[in-house]
Amino acid sequence: MQIDLLSGGYVRFVEAWGSDERIIEAARMSTGKGFLGWGTAEKPGDEKLLRFLYENRHSTPFEMGGMVVEVQAPIFVFREWHRHRTQSYNEMSARYVQMPDLHFVPAADRVRKQDAKNKQGTSSAPLAIEIVDEWLRRIEAEQRLVYETYEWAIAHEIPRELARINTPVSRYSKMRASSNLRNWLGFITLRSAPNAQEEIRVYSDAIASMLDEHFPRTMSLFREGAR
Amino acid sequence: MQIDLLSGGYVRFVEAWGSDERIIEAARMSTGKGFLGWGTAEKPGDEKLLRFLYENRHSTPFEMGGMVVEVQAPIFVFREWHRHRTQSYNEMSARYVQMPDLHFVPAADRVRKQDAKNKQGTSSAPLAIEIVDEWLRRIEAEQRLVYETYEWAIAHEIPRELARINTPVSRYSKMRASSNLRNWLGFITLRSAPNAQEEIRVYSDAIASMLDEHFPRTMSLFREGAR
Amino acid sequence: MQIDLLSGGYVRFVEAWGSDERIIEAARMSTGKGFLGWGTAEKPGDEKLLRFLYENRHSTPFEMGGMVVEVQAPIFVFREWHRHRTQSYNEMSARYVQMPDLHFVPAADRVRKQDAKNKQGTSSAPLAIEIVDEWLRRIEAEQRLVYETYEWAIAHEIPRELARINTPVSRYSKMRASSNLRNWLGFITLRSAPNAQEEIRVYSDAIASMLDEHFPRTMSLFREGAR
Amino acid sequence: MQIDLLSGGYVRFVEAWGSDERIIEAARMSTGKGFLGWGTAEKPGDEKLLRFLYENRHSTPFEMGGMVVEVQAPIFVFREWHRHRTQSYNEMSARYVQMPDLHFVPAADRVRKQDAKNKQGTSSAPLAIEIVDEWLRRIEAEQRLVYETYEWAIAHEIPRELARINTPVSRYSKMRASSNLRNWLGFITLRSAPNAQEEIRVYSDAIASMLDEHFPRTMSLFREGAR
Repeated sequence: MQIDLLSGGYVRFVEAWGSDERIIEAARMSTGKGFLGWGTAEKPGDEKLLRFLYENRHSTPFEMGGMVVEVQAPIFVFREWHRHRTQSYNEMSARYVQMPDLHFVPAADRVRKQDAKNKQGTSSAPLAIEIVDEWLRRIEAEQRLVYETYEWAIAHEIPRELARINTPVSRYSKMRASSNLRNWLGFITLRSAPNAQEEIRVYSDAIASMLDEHFPRTMSLFREGAR
Repeated sequence: MQIDLLSGGYVRFVEAWGSDERIIEAARMSTGKGFLGWGTAEKPGDEKLLRFLYENRHSTPFEMGGMVVEVQAPIFVFREWHRHRTQSYNEMSARYVQMPDLHFVPAADRVRKQDAKNKQGTSSAPLAIEIVDEWLRRIEAEQRLVYETYEWAIAHEIPRELARINTPVSRYSKMRASSNLRNWLGFITLRSAPNAQEEIRVYSDAIASMLDEHFPRTMSLFREGAR
Repeated sequence: MQIDLLSGGYVRFVEAWGSDERIIEAARMSTGKGFLGWGTAEKPGDEKLLRFLYENRHSTPFEMGGMVVEVQAPIFVFREWHRHRTQSYNEMSARYVQMPDLHFVPAADRVRKQDAKNKQGTSSAPLAIEIVDEWLRRIEAEQRLVYETYEWAIAHEIPRELARINTPVSRYSKMRASSNLRNWLGFITLRSAPNAQEEIRVYSDAIASMLDEHFPRTMSLFREGAR
Repeated sequence: MQIDLLSGGYVRFVEAWGSDERIIEAARMSTGKGFLGWGTAEKPGDEKLLRFLYENRHSTPFEMGGMVVEVQAPIFVFREWHRHRTQSYNEMSARYVQMPDLHFVPAADRVRKQDAKNKQGTSSAPLAIEIVDEWLRRIEAEQRLVYETYEWAIAHEIPRELARINTPVSRYSKMRASSNLRNWLGFITLRSAPNAQEEIRVYSDAIASMLDEHFPRTMSLFREGAR
């Protein structure tokens, strides 16, 4: 399963482990019992326990599952992503290989006015179309120019670790990321929030939709905001 | 798969994720390539890369796999185990349930003299059989006595969280433990070492033998001490 | 500063680093400014920023301070404490040294009935005084008996690592613990909560009172439950 | 204390906690004793214990001290730095504030040929002076151009979070970083190594020289490579 994002990026599912049942089994260690069945609407079973764990922030059972993904995203997205210190990462290294000529450019309707109140955000107020066009034109020209110099430098034996120093943070990089479910929930709580930057939010939303498949009951509690 | 230990304890395999191939795939993120095949004796392929990663302590790719186990062990074993802060744990709680009447008693030939040089260890020098017998007799009598009081207390409505305060650390408890491969390797490096206490070493050895099945090439490097 | 607890235990302040001001300075990295002054009731300054950070769970600036303590507590308290994997620990080792003959015995009025609703707790309903007396008598007798065997075993060269296996979890052990402020707040949130066992709650409360001295403004937000 | 680096960057000492003595005190928790004095050349005291701990990788006592620094460095240095997941970070946010017009440009004699054998490094072989000049000219021109567009975009109300997307990774950013000593040692082991990129190595070396002042005995063991 792969979800394409930002015309150039993607999240590709690699592997998941654990399940909603495993979370119950782990939690039941405390009482010596195992998984007893989810129950029905009339006679709720372990659905009730899962909700109790989730609502009361008994977080450790949610560490008993997890997911590995492969991600291609602009470097400025990775810069935020890597501040999550509980994930495992393996990323492309610009010291080892030439980075691809692939850059993020926002769609024109994404480029609206700076939000005056939310200092880190974008408002819904449109900008003059000439401004947007001019800026997009400049942005793309810079990306081409910098990449040309980059290729020129590598062709002239300038070391890759130096040749890359003007890499714009709009350039795409690639990584594998692994995390247990508890920490994925922490990630999507922050990165799918309304005040997250749109360009990381779409990645976070893609992660969430993959978690939906493997941990449907936990994710249903997450989505109803059950705490 | 379950390995019985110490007559009363066990390690039960619950789940593994990742593989030797996945480790290569993650490491190859840095260069943009994927898994290329292990190669042969004459023409080594990614076997060589795996060795390079392992020997040069490029540790993060080894975080891309892991294993979940269920463990029954004496509390003094758990006391050491839980100092490994990179694992996830869910353990039986003596505040919630009555603990089982199940205790560790060493085999007679395990009870040898205190090591004079290695202050934390057991030497190979035997003790007088009368001493060993006397001690084992006392140990078992204490375990029975304390458990009787424990049951008496619970029967008389003394709260479980207090009734358990004389629990001997020889009593068995139970948990699920999850860790990525990198941190399992850290665990078995310390706990399968010659100076580890024998009672945790057998658990660590059982973990190692389960890792052998799921990560045979990495474990082969570990076992030859390749760094 | 040392706070004695449970007649036999203590928390001793060793060292703190950082301060409320340092938290502001770290948070201001995001905007390039430094600490601007706390302000007054009429004209609030960085007091307002601190509250904003705290209420909106901008947690990383609270990692810029911390505290080291020395703790003597019953083993069953340490068993819960060590589940906090973000602290650093150095504890007495029963493999290296003989443990002291020092055990926790609850005061008579602590021994009330098992809570029927809160399965892990103690209710306010009293127990018959004969039950309490009988149980306390048994508990103390067991502690004496086990310690006598322990000393006898060591005197007869049974290795310390085995001689200790019947150590009751009521016996006192000793450690140093270090954590940054963010994680101390996580600790006291769980361990000073009403459903925490009383015997760890008193330690957590002592930690909180030491944090009061070194991080008064942050702790004031914590105590008003400002989120 | 501040160490200026790379003409534009710096490491500024903010605070340290703990000491070589505290490491000994923490280690002595295991045996119940405290710090006994460093001893002399003829009669070594705790110097010997410190060496034993260090050489045998008894790492937890080294978590009982630490250091906080403020760092200004190019983004490509921060990209490597932030992969150390055991430090605490607070960094300037380009979503909140306009980034400064300050960029790293290597000195001409730093720009030597790509290393053919060490694929991630720079060799000692010089490049033609015309190549170096041409590349430096281009690099600086790009930095100016991109910054002009950046200022133009902000002046025209394009949101900061978008205006910054072509930020070159040569631009300086700023952060506070905190870590315990154990993890600083892990950092400088990797980042002061010969195969580390020179631009992060100078930061790592500066960190090491600050640790020298606060943990002289531990650092002396580190510098002699005592394990």
